[in-house]
Amino acid sequence: MSEPAPVLAVVGGGQLARMMAQPAIALGLPLRLLAEAEGVSAAQVIPDHRVGDHRDLDDLRALTAGCAAVTFDHEHVPTAHLHALAADGLAVRPGPDALVHAQDKAVMRARLTAMGVPCPRHLLLGEDAGPDDVAAFGFPCVLKTTRGGYDGKGVWVVRSAADCDEPFAAARESGVALLAEELVDFRRELSALVARSPSGQAAAYPVVASTQQDGICLEVVAPAPDLDPDLATHAQQVALRIAGELDVTGILAVELFERRDGRILVNELAMRPHNTGHWTQDGAVTSQFENHLRAVMDLPLGSPQARERWTVMVNILGAPERDGEPVGRLYDGFPHAMARDPRLRVHLYGKDLRPGRKVGHVNAYGDDLEDCLERARHAAAWFRGDLGNESE
Amino acid sequence: MSEPAPVLAVVGGGQLARMMAQPAIALGLPLRLLAEAEGVSAAQVIPDHRVGDHRDLDDLRALTAGCAAVTFDHEHVPTAHLHALAADGLAVRPGPDALVHAQDKAVMRARLTAMGVPCPRHLLLGEDAGPDDVAAFGFPCVLKTTRGGYDGKGVWVVRSAADCDEPFAAARESGVALLAEELVDFRRELSALVARSPSGQAAAYPVVASTQQDGICLEVVAPAPDLDPDLATHAQQVALRIAGELDVTGILAVELFERRDGRILVNELAMRPHNTGHWTQDGAVTSQFENHLRAVMDLPLGSPQARERWTVMVNILGAPERDGEPVGRLYDGFPHAMARDPRLRVHLYGKDLRPGRKVGHVNAYGDDLEDCLERARHAAAWFRGDLGNESE
Repeated sequence: MSEPAPVLAVVGGGQLARMMAQPAIALGLPLRLLAEAEGVSAAQVIPDHRVGDHRDLDDLRALTAGCAAVTFDHEHVPTAHLHALAADGLAVRPGPDALVHAQDKAVMRARLTAMGVPCPRHLLLGEDAGPDDVAAFGFPCVLKTTRGGYDGKGVWVVRSAADCDEPFAAARESGVALLAEELVDFRRELSALVARSPSGQAAAYPVVASTQQDGICLEVVAPAPDLDPDLATHAQQVALRIAGELDVTGILAVELFERRDGRILVNELAMRPHNTGHWTQDGAVTSQFENHLRAVMDLPLGSPQARERWTVMVNILGAPERDGEPVGRLYDGFPHAMARDPRLRVHLYGKDLRPGRKVGHVNAYGDDLEDCLERARHAAAWFRGDLGNESE
Repeated sequence: MSEPAPVLAVVGGGQLARMMAQPAIALGLPLRLLAEAEGVSAAQVIPDHRVGDHRDLDDLRALTAGCAAVTFDHEHVPTAHLHALAADGLAVRPGPDALVHAQDKAVMRARLTAMGVPCPRHLLLGEDAGPDDVAAFGFPCVLKTTRGGYDGKGVWVVRSAADCDEPFAAARESGVALLAEELVDFRRELSALVARSPSGQAAAYPVVASTQQDGICLEVVAPAPDLDPDLATHAQQVALRIAGELDVTGILAVELFERRDGRILVNELAMRPHNTGHWTQDGAVTSQFENHLRAVMDLPLGSPQARERWTVMVNILGAPERDGEPVGRLYDGFPHAMARDPRLRVHLYGKDLRPGRKVGHVNAYGDDLEDCLERARHAAAWFRGDLGNESE
């Protein structure tokens, strides 16, 4: 007789948890969600959800009682709570000893450097450090908060001692240390995404090129155009090696700089489905969301192969407000977008429009890269409200 | 400023409503479900659900209050209730005047015949009819209940007057008339699936071949192998014409007999996502579930094109009980099925195993039809418990 399906707890009610719900339906895998509030993105589509605080161990314990495993929509659960849950006997995936490398950039840099993985030149700035230490490291450079940054928040490009005032003030206020990093003169940004299970099986997606603006992912092209095949394989091997040595379970995204000399440096790590993997929903045999679920449940992984020559992902971001009102179209953008391009794939997150907020993305696939770029960019611009009659 | 998304009401909590939930997540389209009971297939995955009776107009009105439209997981809502909802001003999609052709086989046969659409020879048996009338029609033939049948229920092949006892008894008990139909000597069964919107836009999926056992769909091959291209186009045109003349909104499935002389006859109509369209989830640009949502919301339709040379769908059915216990594997069938075939696509419905019950399906796509058939059949047999160590 068949066993009932185990329940997977998911902490965080953002769009990543929302998009996990789609393959969970297909797999018959019940999800139980900890949401920041009623009505957030994932709570709209996961019936078994409760509102709670991911920083509260009691809320985490109440959520995960009876669950087979817990995974995450974000990387903000305190490491100590993750250790407590693991000590309770819960399968925490990724585990705290892995996840800390995605939570703390100083820990990540130290570990990767010890592993011999190429990183930008960097310096951890202690409590007593100041602009003089940054000057000694060398301007221009990047200052990053070691914990809690995301989507460009907590990252500053500094070209002078005066530029350092804001990051140092932020560090004093938060009590979180700063890391100084070389400003890499890169050709472009790449991303190597892998899934890895507790059993050690791993699968590497094709390496993609991503375009950022103000630290927010704008576009992804899969696979990265004109990427040297040896470099692509090397990037996948680096990602697989990091996943293995850090004992990552679930999706690991390794954001890379491709330098003009053809070498790669690791920029950031993320241990969850990642914006640079949204193309897999329509462009790969198995999406990153399904492989994340399979990996954290220790099921065999699905093929990460691309189904199409090219897949382009473009994010839909809220435009700046106009007359104090949000700008852009969501549901009411469908008639034009769908009629113009019957092959377009739209993914909305159930979020209200706010300036700069990721509210959805589009995927366009096909044999002609320029055509895919045009289709996806047009659709995203349309939803953003950059095209057509704004008064409509 | 963007309008909030309208809400779509769905009547019936089966797997078809469950599978509508996946594209509804992507489209940011809120669904509100009327479920037969807590815990049924779709209620597991649609937060905004309530338990009620689809034969109760008050339940239907409570469900649909404030909704932009209502659509259906099944065809069992009384026609009078659908007219009442439409009279209230609700968009009922498909509308009662269309849906009656999927609810009442006598109405369907009369209408299609009047349209000149080829149907099997048939005879509506009135209240006073008996086995002699069937004998005059000619044995062997098929008796069908005009309303309420599904998955082989309410269909009898009769070869003698004695065979007529059971269907006539059932007709007397239910008060539903019988239809006698020619037992068609067909080469195979085909299905022509189209989506149609209230605006009149329509999209035709590739014509597929289906294999039935005891009236239940077992396998679908998309596209139908070795189908004459003119016949395929003709079948699509018949389906589009029926959708247009009957003013169908949403998915229309036209089940067809392909006769040995190369002509086609219409067997059945369904006005909802259909088992012969499950292959589209992984094998078409836009799945039947997404196009059903787009159609009933009067949004432009997505491309119905196949993405692959071949896609094979095989249903997972509960096997006969052994020692009074259900047989088969669901979640615990994953390790073997996924490890054997990393490209396999599995869709489970969150249902308990029962003999003959559809509890899921698998899709396998690729360039080699024999390979796809082997992969999908092996996986379905494995989940069904027909392979390997049954005691596990």
